[in-house]
Parts: sequence; structure tokens; C-alpha cells
Amino acid sequence: MSDVKIFAGSAGTDFAKKLAKNLNTEVSPGLVEHFSEGNLLVKTEENVRHQKTIIVQTLWGENLSDNFLELLFWLDALKRADAAEITAIIPYFSYAKADKQEDTGVTSLRARVCADCLQVAGASRVITMDLHSPSIPGFFQIPVENLSARDVFCSYLQKTDLGNGIVVSPDAGFAKQARKYAAQLSLPCAIGDKNRPELNGLAEILEIVGEVKNKNCFIFDDFTTSAGTLVDVARALKERGAAKITAAVTHAPITAQALQRLNESPIEQLLVTNTTDNQAIFSQSEKIVVLDVTQEFARSL
Amino acid sequence: MSDVKIFAGSAGTDFAKKLAKNLNTEVSPGLVEHFSEGNLLVKTEENVRHQKTIIVQTLWGENLSDNFLELLFWLDALKRADAAEITAIIPYFSYAKADKQEDTGVTSLRARVCADCLQVAGASRVITMDLHSPSIPGFFQIPVENLSARDVFCSYLQKTDLGNGIVVSPDAGFAKQARKYAAQLSLPCAIGDKNRPELNGLAEILEIVGEVKNKNCFIFDDFTTSAGTLVDVARALKERGAAKITAAVTHAPITAQALQRLNESPIEQLLVTNTTDNQAIFSQSEKIVVLDVTQEFARSL
Amino acid sequence: MSDVKIFAGSAGTDFAKKLAKNLNTEVSPGLVEHFSEGNLLVKTEENVRHQKTIIVQTLWGENLSDNFLELLFWLDALKRADAAEITAIIPYFSYAKADKQEDTGVTSLRARVCADCLQVAGASRVITMDLHSPSIPGFFQIPVENLSARDVFCSYLQKTDLGNGIVVSPDAGFAKQARKYAAQLSLPCAIGDKNRPELNGLAEILEIVGEVKNKNCFIFDDFTTSAGTLVDVARALKERGAAKITAAVTHAPITAQALQRLNESPIEQLLVTNTTDNQAIFSQSEKIVVLDVTQEFARSL
Amino acid sequence: MSDVKIFAGSAGTDFAKKLAKNLNTEVSPGLVEHFSEGNLLVKTEENVRHQKTIIVQTLWGENLSDNFLELLFWLDALKRADAAEITAIIPYFSYAKADKQEDTGVTSLRARVCADCLQVAGASRVITMDLHSPSIPGFFQIPVENLSARDVFCSYLQKTDLGNGIVVSPDAGFAKQARKYAAQLSLPCAIGDKNRPELNGLAEILEIVGEVKNKNCFIFDDFTTSAGTLVDVARALKERGAAKITAAVTHAPITAQALQRLNESPIEQLLVTNTTDNQAIFSQSEKIVVLDVTQEFARSL
Amino acid sequence: MSDVKIFAGSAGTDFAKKLAKNLNTEVSPGLVEHFSEGNLLVKTEENVRHQKTIIVQTLWGENLSDNFLELLFWLDALKRADAAEITAIIPYFSYAKADKQEDTGVTSLRARVCADCLQVAGASRVITMDLHSPSIPGFFQIPVENLSARDVFCSYLQKTDLGNGIVVSPDAGFAKQARKYAAQLSLPCAIGDKNRPELNGLAEILEIVGEVKNKNCFIFDDFTTSAGTLVDVARALKERGAAKITAAVTHAPITAQALQRLNESPIEQLLVTNTTDNQAIFSQSEKIVVLDVTQEFARSL
Amino acid sequence: MSDVKIFAGSAGTDFAKKLAKNLNTEVSPGLVEHFSEGNLLVKTEENVRHQKTIIVQTLWGENLSDNFLELLFWLDALKRADAAEITAIIPYFSYAKADKQEDTGVTSLRARVCADCLQVAGASRVITMDLHSPSIPGFFQIPVENLSARDVFCSYLQKTDLGNGIVVSPDAGFAKQARKYAAQLSLPCAIGDKNRPELNGLAEILEIVGEVKNKNCFIFDDFTTSAGTLVDVARALKERGAAKITAAVTHAPITAQALQRLNESPIEQLLVTNTTDNQAIFSQSEKIVVLDVTQEFARSL
Repeated sequence: MSDVKIFAGSAGTDFAKKLAKNLNTEVSPGLVEHFSEGNLLVKTEENVRHQKTIIVQTLWGENLSDNFLELLFWLDALKRADAAEITAIIPYFSYAKADKQEDTGVTSLRARVCADCLQVAGASRVITMDLHSPSIPGFFQIPVENLSARDVFCSYLQKTDLGNGIVVSPDAGFAKQARKYAAQLSLPCAIGDKNRPELNGLAEILEIVGEVKNKNCFIFDDFTTSAGTLVDVARALKERGAAKITAAVTHAPITAQALQRLNESPIEQLLVTNTTDNQAIFSQSEKIVVLDVTQEFARSL
Repeated sequence: MSDVKIFAGSAGTDFAKKLAKNLNTEVSPGLVEHFSEGNLLVKTEENVRHQKTIIVQTLWGENLSDNFLELLFWLDALKRADAAEITAIIPYFSYAKADKQEDTGVTSLRARVCADCLQVAGASRVITMDLHSPSIPGFFQIPVENLSARDVFCSYLQKTDLGNGIVVSPDAGFAKQARKYAAQLSLPCAIGDKNRPELNGLAEILEIVGEVKNKNCFIFDDFTTSAGTLVDVARALKERGAAKITAAVTHAPITAQALQRLNESPIEQLLVTNTTDNQAIFSQSEKIVVLDVTQEFARSL
Repeated sequence: MSDVKIFAGSAGTDFAKKLAKNLNTEVSPGLVEHFSEGNLLVKTEENVRHQKTIIVQTLWGENLSDNFLELLFWLDALKRADAAEITAIIPYFSYAKADKQEDTGVTSLRARVCADCLQVAGASRVITMDLHSPSIPGFFQIPVENLSARDVFCSYLQKTDLGNGIVVSPDAGFAKQARKYAAQLSLPCAIGDKNRPELNGLAEILEIVGEVKNKNCFIFDDFTTSAGTLVDVARALKERGAAKITAAVTHAPITAQALQRLNESPIEQLLVTNTTDNQAIFSQSEKIVVLDVTQEFARSL
Repeated sequence: MSDVKIFAGSAGTDFAKKLAKNLNTEVSPGLVEHFSEGNLLVKTEENVRHQKTIIVQTLWGENLSDNFLELLFWLDALKRADAAEITAIIPYFSYAKADKQEDTGVTSLRARVCADCLQVAGASRVITMDLHSPSIPGFFQIPVENLSARDVFCSYLQKTDLGNGIVVSPDAGFAKQARKYAAQLSLPCAIGDKNRPELNGLAEILEIVGEVKNKNCFIFDDFTTSAGTLVDVARALKERGAAKITAAVTHAPITAQALQRLNESPIEQLLVTNTTDNQAIFSQSEKIVVLDVTQEFARSL
Repeated sequence: MSDVKIFAGSAGTDFAKKLAKNLNTEVSPGLVEHFSEGNLLVKTEENVRHQKTIIVQTLWGENLSDNFLELLFWLDALKRADAAEITAIIPYFSYAKADKQEDTGVTSLRARVCADCLQVAGASRVITMDLHSPSIPGFFQIPVENLSARDVFCSYLQKTDLGNGIVVSPDAGFAKQARKYAAQLSLPCAIGDKNRPELNGLAEILEIVGEVKNKNCFIFDDFTTSAGTLVDVARALKERGAAKITAAVTHAPITAQALQRLNESPIEQLLVTNTTDNQAIFSQSEKIVVLDVTQEFARSL
Repeated sequence: MSDVKIFAGSAGTDFAKKLAKNLNTEVSPGLVEHFSEGNLLVKTEENVRHQKTIIVQTLWGENLSDNFLELLFWLDALKRADAAEITAIIPYFSYAKADKQEDTGVTSLRARVCADCLQVAGASRVITMDLHSPSIPGFFQIPVENLSARDVFCSYLQKTDLGNGIVVSPDAGFAKQARKYAAQLSLPCAIGDKNRPELNGLAEILEIVGEVKNKNCFIFDDFTTSAGTLVDVARALKERGAAKITAAVTHAPITAQALQRLNESPIEQLLVTNTTDNQAIFSQSEKIVVLDVTQEFARSL
């Protein structure tokens, strides 16, 4: 796949560069303009006719809507320039959480709206990572590759001392995934779950199912925004006598406030990946280690 | 909605009759033929031009594929007869479990295939109940109403003595739903979860989070085929000193073998609904109580 | 076309093997599972990304609906695995008979429903043989290759003594096709037709237009299920003094009962092809000769 | 259906007027312009928003392509004016003959192309009559009503003396239809068929299966352009001693040359309908009787 | 159309209120939430099943992309709630300027991308005003009503003294429209055009074709962002001896800087409409008169 | 692109030949038949499976509708023969003028209807030249290449003496294009515009903005049918003292009458291209020079 042309959206610059390096190529030049009326324009001088093309754009944050429209415009531009294949690489697709309608009221199935727009604009394939809902590929007619950061996290951790370790799932929802981490690391697994076992109990109680005393705990999750759950679980582990606590989340769209919460927590290290292009925040904490996952994307091309 | 015409597929006859009664109307006559080559034919003499129409077909069991094709043919027949609105009522849509691709290998997103076929054949709306995956509506472009049997189960139970009761979720996956049952019944909630907390533990251990001693337990789930999980949980509850045990599942596509397992279990009563049209099996056990949910469907028309 | 990957559905195993042999390749491994609720699953571990792929499934018989859904799932699986080209080979497509709506009543255009499902599931091309209705390709937007078994039958017969032979069409509907056989074999052509020439004639009379006395008759048709028409025509030919009678049908979805009727008839030999994967029945009669048509399919790839 | 608005294309003016009369309404005014570059424009000042609309255009003849494009433009105009329902009435759809690809060579499935264009332009329903191929409705996703002129012809004939009559099908292809005419008229049925029974017979021989001596013959067919087959059959009937000969065809897109052939033939009367808007030719022969079929269309609205 | 339900997007609140008043109804309650990750959510508790619905959202400005996605989510929410008709009212659609690809380079046809997204999300009709490119409706398959503010401007002006007046088009591109204004006001028309008549002329010269001396000038245009062209034309008119100068633009997505330019210019009055929901800016200048156009939209419902 | 197969429609024969020569290949044989009922048939014996294909058809003139349908049938034929890529080359697409609905009345967006038909029939790409409306590509989802004849005209003229020359746009609408010509030829630019500056002025006055006295004038336009505007402008230029006058239009769908008008005008030379396949007319005037633009199309393949 050396003959592919890679383009980068405003929120995909760094990721695209690293990806291109993996493929021994360079990011093709492209231009994004913002006009005074709020309109966006994307443009490249590259000839992409009959070429395989990739456009990289991560989708979250303050400018999420701008970035989404920009991605649609890139897809349309490549389609109208008669590219042979148009792969949208969306390292973090935060609308994957919006996979169902609310319990009450008339609401939108927003992940499906996004899927439909990406397809109508021209995407012929999507590659992304650790979608919050594994049903999201069913929202598309085109192939969707849902990669996992597990290999990257496990490789990193296996270079450290895993002795006396235990994998911890922060809630029941991630338990199935956590067990895969445990299996890959050859570690046991504990599950945290917030529950309100008695009817009139005022507060939720965070239960930890599994013995963590004196153990080095490795909490895994697919994402964190506020670091709230991670820190709560970490504290509960400490209360139960846990030794060193490490956390790892694929997507870390965290804010400065979350950073402070992390710094004040018993979590000694937080592993994240570069799917969020959130280096400005990451660089403010010594606890954070950023792992590059672009080689996982490169492998699937 | 008194002017609607209701048709019944081979696996929707009883459900359609009860639904029609709720709407003060009758099921329109229709014919299904099976030819020697395996071909199916559906037919009606009713004029449906500019009419609102409903076709009822439940989708599971030995003849699932026949029933699915039959449903597609009904939809197409109504579409080509120029019906104004074509609602597919699928009381139990068992392919809702097939909402993601397998972890390894090249597999089909079968629920999406079904959704696409239903739409291309002519469905303008789908009404179903307690879909195993709540993301399924996102597989459709048309409106999908995902009803709940909760009101029906709770109404029935609230006529009994709920004193000293507790709701039990048989696994972590159903916990969120179980808590809704608990809230509606004003009961506390316990969660069961099969886990393998230690790495080399040979067997999964079924944990029960919550105090069930001397309590009347109400286990809820969306479906059961083999009754296996229900019975395992019931036994674990008994071991922990539970009093009377009642179970309730919306969909009960159970076999004779499951029936035997149920009869030999500590479950004293199993509430089910009529979404599966499985009366032949249900009638063989005195423990089973079948609740009619057609009024829930009638209300959404 | 040596780089193609061939998969076989449950009703296409033997045909796929022979086809693969023609292409000097092998059938790729695949798996079909049937679950207790009636659900099907298809799966392969082959990498098909950017590959040309073929899935072989014949469509008739007791499990027709299962086989049809299975085919849809294979198509979807290959599509989502990003295959470059997905050819559905359907040796016998029995729903091709369902090419129009019934004279009265609201019925489905079932062949069109099948066509739409095959396309929405992912087929990019269909190859089939001797469709009962030659209009079926118009039900598709994708290319449909409608092959003929004529070359295979004629090659076989031309190795025998055709002296004093005559081609017979069993009814007016097949007359146009029968004349093509006659032309290719350099034989004259007679036409049978069931008619009720007088108004109150109680029974249909089978007319034979053309002189068959002392001639070796070759009856051709596209398919037979019960062998009824073939045997009736054979008897009428005998009554008119015909010599040896041979019949040939492309598709022979025949049952044990048809076999008995054939054995008791004046037909001395019945040529069939392997489009129906019906070897279990074929092997029970010494009158039946099965001709392999996979090389015709191979040639069109 | 009194609230429908009826528009007429250039080749549907008379038909639309008669149809409107049946519905106690009038044809809405519309305008068709031809520009010097060959472009067409259609236009109306009527407000059709939320109205049921009909556009009448027959499709054959020297200006067939112009008339087809004009019809597409009418459909689009009504769609963009937000009509609630857009029915295309195509009394004679001559491309219905183009329902399959040629035996050799790369050719177009022209009837499907027409069907796709009609749908993409905005038709929500098609009503037509005696399609040459009964499979044509399967080329559409929208409802297609394929009316028959049989009731109109039989009503007319039943007012005459049918004694000693016999229905004649001009070829094997129309035999099934001819038998329906025979049943409705309570007459026997004979079948003509051009055949070349012996291999090296230079000429086709027209066989008549059935006894026609001294009988009044009623030949039916769906259409005739050159009157060739009708006249050949009529002569063959005369040779076999037939008495008076009447012919009836739904669609008569005949030319002046065909008229001469008719006039010189033993056919005493030719019944046609007004589906072709071909009055200019019809009025030149005293043998031709034109029956109005608009009430059949009116009834299906 | 009294039974319509009107919803308002974040950028359509005031416009929707005035529109509702015109229809003697009220805006239905709706909710828009912005989540920390940049995701948006829209929601209403209204039942819209089988109802005609309207969603109002103007599309320009700092939050254009957010507003566009919000509109898509509203459309999808109404579609999935089974509304009978979903009209998107977009008072100002600024992407209408993006109606062609750039002269060089690979760029997106952004107006078409927007059109496709609006349709796939669920819009069944669009109503907007004075689109910059009159070809935009051709980017849609659904009806697009492109209203004009001309009646509103002319009604307002006709209540003032138009004696000795002249309509001025600020450039050649708007000349056709300006002449319509002139005709409706019974005034003559002059055309401005920036030109560079000599090859090496360094600066563009603004020509005014038509005699404006001592005349009251009425400059019309479809929009202005910077007020630059309007002010340049106004100055050129003054240099040619014009009397009082009034300008009128349908859409005024102007900034504070444009306001200053306007205030310092010879334009005595600037008429604008409320399509931009830009009251915060408008209220800062005494020269600006805002005319309500909602009754034009109400009339087209 | 040497492996492409080029087909020619009835109105594309010469253009296709010249194009093929540019590509060092030949036009593939194809057949067009017109039947007595007005039906068309297209056919080729070439194998196009997996081939890149081109079909050339220019769209204007007396047989425009026939040529359009023929083009649709070619596209469908190539699609059903499984061509890998199907490029429609439409040298002159006269419906590009029909890019908006009329001011009053219910009319069709005819260019969009054509675009939809071309796509549904099978075009995967369109190449055309100097579309009257530059928004037309937005009517398509597939890539549309809108070439310009500017390079061809300028190359030709640059071989002549351009001294003392000036480019003239015949109206305001073409001004933007004319300036591009001026820039490429390094000439100044004048603009003509028909105006009615005073309200009750009976006649339009043709203004020329720019000094043309004693200058050699080069009038450019995208097309002319009647030569009316060109001749009017030429006369106005002469009245203002212009020297030699040359005109150049990309598309010249002119009639004999236009030819006469040209011959009697002060235009000394009219450059046209071969997009209209209008050689029969062109050859009748010595003033006309036909430039071949096929190499521009060849370059974009």
C-alpha cells in the first residue's frame, strides 16, 4: 500500500504524519480555510484520480462540528476528483456513544446520522479504534474496521514488571473487554461496579468484585473525559489495600480539570494513545504516557 | 387507528388476533402457500390501496428463514398494492442478537442484513419489543419502536405481595434494565455476575452482589432459550438463603429440554409474554404464566 | 482469473468444488452454523480484502429459505471484509418463476424481492443458468449472466447417433428455445401443446405439431419437478409411433415420486445437469445421466 | 378520487380528456415548448402542492424519445411542486417489448432503463395496459397496474352475434391470453403457430390447431404494427374454410402501409383501443372500430 | 396548515416565534444540549407522529457547523418519530455560495454535500430565501422553495417617497434581479460594475451605467458581509451627483467592522431582513431597519 | 490510458474518431437501430468486462431526445456487460442551460433530470466542456470534468497578430470568463451589456464598457445558436470605431439562418470547436474556422 495518498484534516495533522511515516510516505499537502460567515473550504493540488486515498480526522472537542463538516468536504473533494478508494481514518469517533435514542422524548440517533453523512459524502471505508459501542459498524453499509489498542497497551506493559498484578474493569460494561486484557497479560481480573443495592440507599456504592489487596492494579477503559470513574475506582482499590495503580484508556479527550483530578489521585501512571490529538493537555502531566497507535492503523490498510 | 388492516404471517396468527381485538377489528384474510420446490407465496384478496396496513410476524425458531422471507413477501405485496403505510410488527426479533461482527474472521452483520431487506421490501415502520441490543434501531432508516414488557410484568406483579422482595439481574449486562424494574416496583436490586476472578480458577463463579437472604427474588431478563442462566442464578440465590424465586423474561423461545430444566429448578414461577407464539411449549409447564403484550403494541399504533 | 477466492454455501459445496477445479484452485474454507433459535451464522478466516470473490449457492428445495439467507450473509460478510468484487453464482434460481404478480389478489413479485435483497446484501454480479423467465436480469441493476446448458447437452448428444432424430418442445412456451436446440443439432423440430380446442371439451388434448413417426425424439426443457409433462409428452410421442425417446432438462429438482414416474415412462434416458446438487435422487435411477456445467460458469468469470 | 389533477403530455391529450370526463373533471392546463436546440420545456400554472396528480403520456411513435423526456420533465415538475401522489398513465408503453438483452452482443435492458428514469424523475405509481411482457412490473419498485382491454372488447362483441364463433390466437405466445378471451366469451379456442417442422423446409408453415371451418373467427392480440401476422392468420383461416373474420388488438401503432394491408385482407373488422392516440390513421379505414378504454383507467385510480 | 408543529434550532428561535405567530400557533418546546466532548443532543417531548412538522434553523456564523449538525439531528429525530412531513426552514443558507468547485485544485462541492446531508437526515422539503446561486434547488431531489424578499422591501419602500428614484445594481451579477426590483417599483435601473478595462490598469474602476445625478438611489443586493461593495457603490454614486442613498440586502451577516464602515458611508439607510437572526449587531446602528419576512415563509407552507 | 474502449453514439461519431486518434486507438464498433415504433436499440460485440470504457455523444439538435435515450442505453449496456469504468463524454450538453426552475409556474429542473438519468443508467464519470452553468457538476454525485476551450482558442490566436487587440465579453454574464481570456492573451477587456437604463425606454441599448476605437476586437462566448448577440455586439463595436472583429464560441449549434446573419455581419472570422458535430453547417461559410478540442478530452482521461 505504498501508493496511497494521505490527507490530514485540521484535527488529524499529527496522527497523519505518524501514519505516513509507518507507510514510508508523506502527508499530501492540503489547505483548510475558514471564512468570515463560518463557511469552511478544503483544497489540495494533488492529483488523486485512480489513486487510493486516506483522510485522517479525529472527531471530538470544541471544534467537533467544524471538524466533522471539514471531513465531509474532504471526502466529497476526493470523490469528485475520482479517487479509486477513499478511507476515512477517524482515530476517535466520539459520536459512537450516541448509538441509541433516549429513553423518553423524540431524539436523534446521532451516530447513524454521522454514518449516513460520511457515506453520502464519499467514504468507501472507515477505520477507527475502540468504538464505545461495538454495534456502530452496523450503522454503515461500507466496511468499518474497529481496531483495538490492546496490543499496544499490552506490549508496553509487558516490558514492565507485571508480577502480582491484576486487571480491573472500572464497571460491568467494560468487563468483557477487561477479561481480554487479563487473558493477554496472563493476569487475573477484578470488576468494579457502582451499585445501589438497597432501595433507599442514598448513595451508590462502588463494589469491587475480586481480591486486590497488595496487588498492582491495571485499570483499563475505552475512554475518559473527566477521569472521574478512574479516580473513584482507584480510591476504592486503595481502600481495599491495593499496591501500585496504573490506568490505561484508549481515548483521553480530557480537560485541564480532569488533569488536576488525575494528579491528585492515587493513580501513578495513566497510559493513553494519540487518537485524540490532545498533546497540549497530555504534556501538562508527568503521570501521562502517550502511546502511538498509528502502526495499528497502518497494518489494516 | 380504527381504519387499519392487519395481516398475519404464519408465525403471527395468534398475536395478530389479539392485537386486532385490542383495535376492535379483525385480522384480514391472507394465504401462505409452500410449493414443492421450497418456494413460498403470500396472497390476500383485500384491497389495501391508500390504507394503513400492519403485518405481524415473529422471527425465531425452526422456520425462522421461511418466516423471514414470508414477511418480506408480505411487505412487497402491500407495497405493490399501494398501501399508504406498512408497519411490520415483529414481536420477537431474534436476529437482534447479531448486532456485531465476530471477534475473528470474516462474518456478516446479520441484523443489518435483515434490516436492509425489511426496508427494501417495503416496511415503512417496525414495532418490536425488548430488542437484545438497543442499538438495532440505528440499523434502520425507518422508525423503529422498541417497546418494553416492563409495564406488563410490573402490573401483574403489583397485584401480588411484593413484600420483602428484591429484583435480581442475572448478569451485569442486564443490570441497567433490572434497576428500572426495581425502581418501578419500588424494590431493591441485586446483580448476579459470572466471573473468573483469579487467573487460573478453573470454573466461573457466580457472584451475587446484594443481600438476598430470606428475600423473595424476582429475576428479570429479556430472553431465555435454554433457561440455563436463570436456573443457575436461582440456585445461587437459594444457596444464599433466598425465599421464593420468580423469574420473568419477555421472550421465551424455549425448547422441551429447557422446560425440564425449569421444572427441576428452584424457580417457582416463570412469567413470559406471548411474543414468541410458543404456546405449545408453554402449556406443558404449570410454572409458566403467559402475559399478553398486544395492548402495548396497539397503543403505539 | 486465477486470483479469485471461491466460497461455498451449504447448497453449493459440490458445484463449488468442480468450479474451483476448472479454475485450478480450491474452495476457500468457510463455516455455517445453525443456532437453536433458528439463526444462521457464516464465517471464514480467509483474508478477502481487495480480492475477487465468488460465493456459490443453489436456490431451491426444502431449505430454500435458509439457503437464501445464508447467501445474503455470505455476501454481506464479503462486502464488509472489503472484497473487490463479489459474484453470486446461483446455478439454479427457482424463484425466477415468480416473475409476475398473480392474476387476482395482492401478491408479491418475489423474484424482485430476491433480486433486491441480493443487491443490498452486496452482490456485484450474478451468474446463473437457464432462468425460467428471461426477463429476470431486468429485476437487477447489477450484471446478470444467464448461461445456457445447450452447449453441454448438444456436445454430449453429438457424440451419440442423432440419425433420424427430431427435437421436441414439450409445450409452446419452450418452442423458441427448442428451435435453438434443433438448429444446433441440425435436427427438425416438433412442438407439443396441451390444448382444449373445443369449448366444452372436458379434457385437455396434447397435440404434437410435426411428424415423429419412427423418429428418435429428443425432448428439451429448462426444468422439471414432477416429470409430469415430460412423461405425458413421451407417451403422446409413443402413441404417434416415435422410436427411442430421450429427455434433457437443465434443472432437475425432482423428488422420489418423480423418479418413479420417470422409471415407468417410455423415456429411455434423462439428461440433467448438476445445477441442483440433487445427486442423492439422481443416483437412484439408471436412466439419469448428470452432466457437469461448471466449465460454462468458469468461462464466464 | 374527485380531487385529482390531470395533466396531459403531447401524446396524451385526447386520452386525458376522455379520462377526465370519466372522473367528472377537466384536464389541467399545461404547456410544452420545443426550443431550437432541441430542448423541451413543460410548464403549468396550477398549484399541485399536497394534491394527487396524474400525467398522461402514451409512449410510441416517431416522437417517442421526445415524449419520454417530456414525461420525465412532467414528473419532475410535479415532484418539485410537492404533489402528494404522482401517477404516470402510459396507455401504450412500447418499450415493454425490450424486456431482455439480445442473445448475442452487449445490449441494453431498455425497459429497465425507462423504468429507472420514470422512478428517479418522480413517478409514485404507473398505470398501463396489456404490457407485451407481463414481467415489466418487476422492473419497478413502485406499484404498476397492468390493466387489460379484455372487458372492453368482450362487452363490445357480446352485443353482436357470437354464434358459431371461435377465438383464434395468432401465435403460441398469446395462447394463454386467447384462452382467457375464449372463456369470457364462452367460445372455443384455436391456436395459430408459424413453424418450420422439417429441418430444411425453406418456408415457415402457419399451422392452425383447432377446427375453424364455417366458423366466425375472432383473432386477438396485444398489438400490431404492420398487421402482418393478423393478415397471415386471417388468410390461413380462410384457406381452412373460415366464415367471417374479426380481429382485435389493444394497441394499434399502425402505419399507412399496414392500413393498406388490412384493407386488402379477409379481415372484415379490426377492433382497436385508443391507447395509441392514433386516430389520424384509424379514421382512414372503415374496417377499424376504436373502443375507448379510459374508464378502465379511471376505475383503477 | 394550522395543525403543524414548529421547532426551533439554536439559530432559529426568534424567526420561529414570529413564524408561529403568523400561523396562530406556538413554537413547540425543544432542547439542545452541548456536551463536554463537543457532542450535541436535540430533544423534544412533543408527539409528532403523523404530524406535519417544521424545523427552523438559519445557517451562517461562528457556530455554523454546530448549527448545521443540530439541524441534521432535528431532522433525524422527527423522521424517527414518524412525522408525516418535515420541512426545513433555512432563512439564510450561506453555503449556497459554494455551488461550484474552485478553478484549480481538488475541492468540495460544499452546497451539494449540505444538500445530501439534509436529505439523508430526513428533510422532505426546504424553504429558504434569496439563495445566492439560483441553481441550488437542483442540488436537491426534494422540493426547495426559494422565496424572495422583494415584496417585503418594495412594500416598505412604496410607503415612502420614491419620486426621482433609481434602482442600482451593485454589480453585473445582480443586474437581472435589480431589474425586477426596478419593474416592481416602477423606477429606472442603473448598473455598477467593477472593471479593469485596460490591461495594465493597476486598479479596478467602478463604472456606473445609467444616469444617477440628483437621483435618490436604491441599491439592492442579496447579501453583504463586510458592506464593502455597497459602500464603494454608494461613494461612486455620490461622486456622480446622486441625492439620497438607500441600500437593501436580504441577508446581512455583518460584523461590527462592517457596521462601522456603514456608519461612515453615504448610505443613509440600510434595509435588512431578519433571516440572519443578527439583531445583536443590527441594534447597534440607527441606519439599519430590520424587516420581518416570516409571513413570506408562512404563506408558502 | 491505452487500454480504454471508445464507443460512439449517433451524434458522437466524428468526435470519437478524433479522440481515439489522440489515444492511439480506434473506435470500437457499435450499432444503433431505430425501429418503426420509435424504439431505439444499441449494440456492440466487443467484450468490455473489466475494461475502462468511454461513450461519446453530443447532446443538442433536432434529435436531442433520441440521442439522449441512446446515450442512456449505451451506458446501461456497458454497465450490464460489467465494464470497470464508464465515462460519458458529452462534448456539448445543451440542457446545462436548464439549471433552474422558471420564475413562475410549475416547471422541471431539467438538467437535474438528465443528470439523474445518466447516473441511474450507469455513468461513473462525465466529461464535458464549457457548461453554460458552472453549477451543473453539483447536480451529479459522480465526478464531472468541465473542460474549457480557452487553451485551444488562445493557442490558435497567439499564432496570429494580436497587436492592438482587445477582448470583448458580449454581456455581463460572460464577463468573468472574458477576463480569463484577456489575461491569457495579455489583452485588455471590454464588456458589452444590453440595458434599458431609463424606465420607459422602449428599446434596450447595447452599452460597451471600455475603449474599442481602432482596436482589433476578439469577442468570446460559450455558445451561440442564432448568432444574434454576437452580430449585435459586432455592429456596436463597429459603430464605436473598432478595427477587425473576430468572434469565438465553444459551442456553435447554429442553423442556416444564423449562418446568413453571420455572413452579412462585420464579424470577419468565427472560431468554433467541434463539440457540436455541426460540420454540415460549418462547411457552408468561409468565415468559420473549426478547432478540434478532442486532445483536451484525451488529456483528462
